[in-house]
Amino acid sequence: MAEGIRVTVWNEGVHEKGNARVRQVYPKGMGWQIAHYLKKQPRIARVRVAELSDPEQGLSEAALKQTDVMTWWGHKAHDKVLDKFVDRVHARVLDGMGLVVLHSGHYSKIFKRLMGTTCSLKWREWQDVGEKERLWVVDPAHPIAEGLPEYFELPNTEMYGEHFDIPAPEQLVLISWFQGGEVFRSGCCWHRGKGKIFYFRPGHETFPIYHNDLALKVIYNGIRWTAPTPATGPLRRTNIPVPLEPLDQ
Amino acid sequence: MAEGIRVTVWNEGVHEKGNARVRQVYPKGMGWQIAHYLKKQPRIARVRVAELSDPEQGLSEAALKQTDVMTWWGHKAHDKVLDKFVDRVHARVLDGMGLVVLHSGHYSKIFKRLMGTTCSLKWREWQDVGEKERLWVVDPAHPIAEGLPEYFELPNTEMYGEHFDIPAPEQLVLISWFQGGEVFRSGCCWHRGKGKIFYFRPGHETFPIYHNDLALKVIYNGIRWTAPTPATGPLRRTNIPVPLEPLDQ
Amino acid sequence: MAEGIRVTVWNEGVHEKGNARVRQVYPKGMGWQIAHYLKKQPRIARVRVAELSDPEQGLSEAALKQTDVMTWWGHKAHDKVLDKFVDRVHARVLDGMGLVVLHSGHYSKIFKRLMGTTCSLKWREWQDVGEKERLWVVDPAHPIAEGLPEYFELPNTEMYGEHFDIPAPEQLVLISWFQGGEVFRSGCCWHRGKGKIFYFRPGHETFPIYHNDLALKVIYNGIRWTAPTPATGPLRRTNIPVPLEPLDQ
Amino acid sequence: MAEGIRVTVWNEGVHEKGNARVRQVYPKGMGWQIAHYLKKQPRIARVRVAELSDPEQGLSEAALKQTDVMTWWGHKAHDKVLDKFVDRVHARVLDGMGLVVLHSGHYSKIFKRLMGTTCSLKWREWQDVGEKERLWVVDPAHPIAEGLPEYFELPNTEMYGEHFDIPAPEQLVLISWFQGGEVFRSGCCWHRGKGKIFYFRPGHETFPIYHNDLALKVIYNGIRWTAPTPATGPLRRTNIPVPLEPLDQ
Repeated sequence: MAEGIRVTVWNEGVHEKGNARVRQVYPKGMGWQIAHYLKKQPRIARVRVAELSDPEQGLSEAALKQTDVMTWWGHKAHDKVLDKFVDRVHARVLDGMGLVVLHSGHYSKIFKRLMGTTCSLKWREWQDVGEKERLWVVDPAHPIAEGLPEYFELPNTEMYGEHFDIPAPEQLVLISWFQGGEVFRSGCCWHRGKGKIFYFRPGHETFPIYHNDLALKVIYNGIRWTAPTPATGPLRRTNIPVPLEPLDQ
Repeated sequence: MAEGIRVTVWNEGVHEKGNARVRQVYPKGMGWQIAHYLKKQPRIARVRVAELSDPEQGLSEAALKQTDVMTWWGHKAHDKVLDKFVDRVHARVLDGMGLVVLHSGHYSKIFKRLMGTTCSLKWREWQDVGEKERLWVVDPAHPIAEGLPEYFELPNTEMYGEHFDIPAPEQLVLISWFQGGEVFRSGCCWHRGKGKIFYFRPGHETFPIYHNDLALKVIYNGIRWTAPTPATGPLRRTNIPVPLEPLDQ
Repeated sequence: MAEGIRVTVWNEGVHEKGNARVRQVYPKGMGWQIAHYLKKQPRIARVRVAELSDPEQGLSEAALKQTDVMTWWGHKAHDKVLDKFVDRVHARVLDGMGLVVLHSGHYSKIFKRLMGTTCSLKWREWQDVGEKERLWVVDPAHPIAEGLPEYFELPNTEMYGEHFDIPAPEQLVLISWFQGGEVFRSGCCWHRGKGKIFYFRPGHETFPIYHNDLALKVIYNGIRWTAPTPATGPLRRTNIPVPLEPLDQ
Repeated sequence: MAEGIRVTVWNEGVHEKGNARVRQVYPKGMGWQIAHYLKKQPRIARVRVAELSDPEQGLSEAALKQTDVMTWWGHKAHDKVLDKFVDRVHARVLDGMGLVVLHSGHYSKIFKRLMGTTCSLKWREWQDVGEKERLWVVDPAHPIAEGLPEYFELPNTEMYGEHFDIPAPEQLVLISWFQGGEVFRSGCCWHRGKGKIFYFRPGHETFPIYHNDLALKVIYNGIRWTAPTPATGPLRRTNIPVPLEPLDQ
């Protein structure tokens, strides 16, 4: 950690292969685009892109061990991620690995597992152009708000609307306004075990959200916030046969 | 609801069958003991005991439909509860049914599913006599603290100690002090979907915890707090093709 | 409490006196309008209107003692409320009295005292007609959401926008969307001492917000949620010279 | 911030002057002792000790402007701190300055102002020797838990017991167990405005708490966690006469 954060950008990578329009926006894949940005930021030690089509779906034990924070983007193939790998990522998060879940990743197995709810929501893609989203900072003290203006806009987005079926965020940083009439809790923080989780709403396979500097900045801030708390002692969760204090009875 | 809360006391019911000492404390079963108390309380419309050995493990669709709040006690046979019934209870909680999880129920499938964490903890049973537990009210404004003194004691208990691997309680009502040197978050509240969940630590199969009036009172308060919020409109979580507001672009 | 909730509707009552347009909307005063609605609801034992021009500004010791929940509306004369009465209301809330703060009451002395922040926000009144507000339920399990649809609309409102400088709500029930481009945390819950506080955004002296059935329903739900938890034992906050446990050293 | 955190250790400094036993434990003052430790830590740019007897009570505008995080220790002279300086510190915290409140600082004007409650609690000093305190980590993901074991002990302490009359901590990191039978929420986090606040229970004028490495480490971790989030844009809290979106009505 002192030497910087090791990031794995996990990207489903299915859209990019089959869809010319997606390739136009993300010629080298959405994962590459995010990784390319991250590599230029301070405090980032290493960025690796992993995809569903990689060996062990990009989620080998060795890879996870060397990951401080994982970002997760999936959309069409959530069900293809094998349960044994979801178990592995789940255990790694509870053991301290940060997880930044992006946009349609709200329906990924790993996010639903960690939340314990359906993670369902409303959505709308309006006539190929989408609609305007304005993200308001509601917790300016939060590290994820670092360097953000009081709000920022994304001109063409897919709408996500409430009710978003998640546990109440432990810290709520951003709320979105949508032109079509909805609101959404768009920047949400949780602790789970020794790990931290950040959900960030914006993203899309054809709207160029991850070309927007402020959207990328929020992802970067989320990575720093979810980075592990180093060297917390082992937590024994076990039978403790001998009391710490004498029990003379 | 106006007519009162319909409670299902779900009890694993395994200990009671095989162990004479347990039968001494709970001759008709632990479920019967809790139900017997609840039936005498105001605002309770009906109490039913359900056990693992019942048809459909006591968790039929019909039974769940007629349950406003379920209390859950299990210990030895968590793994025997079939996943399809866990799915069913999970969906019912997200749709509004209250859930009061008792003591060793922290390791039940349904609680772990709803929490998204391991729900592990430390524990100790000291030489058949256990040790003293003192439960302190830390949120006196909370309905679950109704009628409680600033603390109450259980003279002989199994210890549960931190770290308790749960999501931070949305409301923390009780913290336990243990004679042997540990503390524990013993009264914990969460919302999940339309449902409310209360975890209450005290309980045991041979220490007569559910003969203690204040422990029973907390369970009763928990039932009232987790009772469903009636008649909230349906929450559509779906594609919304037509915007609420006109989008002329 | 078993016999119902005793409500005091505290109303500044200044606008109504000097402004013909306000009198058109609230001929008997805004307090009367809210009280009139509340009196017809179940579980309400008694409703009293108190105003700034009353003896002791409507906040006598006797009146407070007989109040389970107080609603608070002020706008033009926050500074006229004497500190000694603010001290009194503050102490009563910490001792269990519920407080429902309405709209421009966000800038009242009592709300700022309880929050510890500036409670400032953005606002806009658009050309006498205002703008549309749509309130979304984000916590459908919460008692304050009882009976609400997934969202409801107020066609003509004054806008309130983020950043709203409050402590993060312990439970966030409603988020508002405004036609002009803002969002707002409009239904916010906190515990303070033995008391509960609910802030509800909608309201205005000339837009007829408190003639809207759903706005009134939220106020009523807020009153039930903030009603005191009865009979919690006295909380000693004092020197405890003798340990509960023997300390032989 | 990139260059490190500028800390002001505010110390009442009254005990040290009048009491030989205090001087034995803290010969150069308690503030000096904390500052001495902090100066050796990474990411700390500058440490200054300020005392009640300093000009402007150590709280000049210039000093506050150059402070990123202030630690606060007071005990005997809370009332001596002038309201105008409390106003100033309050405004600075809401504008982003971190505040770490230590032990008896729970009764300081600034802490009560920020919390909005009485901040009262139970306490006991047992026969000059005090009693054992054991602090348990309950949120191992939190940055303030960095490097801590699952619990740590202070052999001789003044007891602080619940109910502690504070707003529920937004994040609860530590719970104390006391030998005499009490528990306490000992490491508590809040956001207020753009600022962050950490309350840490341990401390005393004659028990040598701030000679304990782990107690000092928690203070240091608290300073890092409360350090300001840099460069968040100005938050306008004002009338916004022109809507962001066109309102044609």
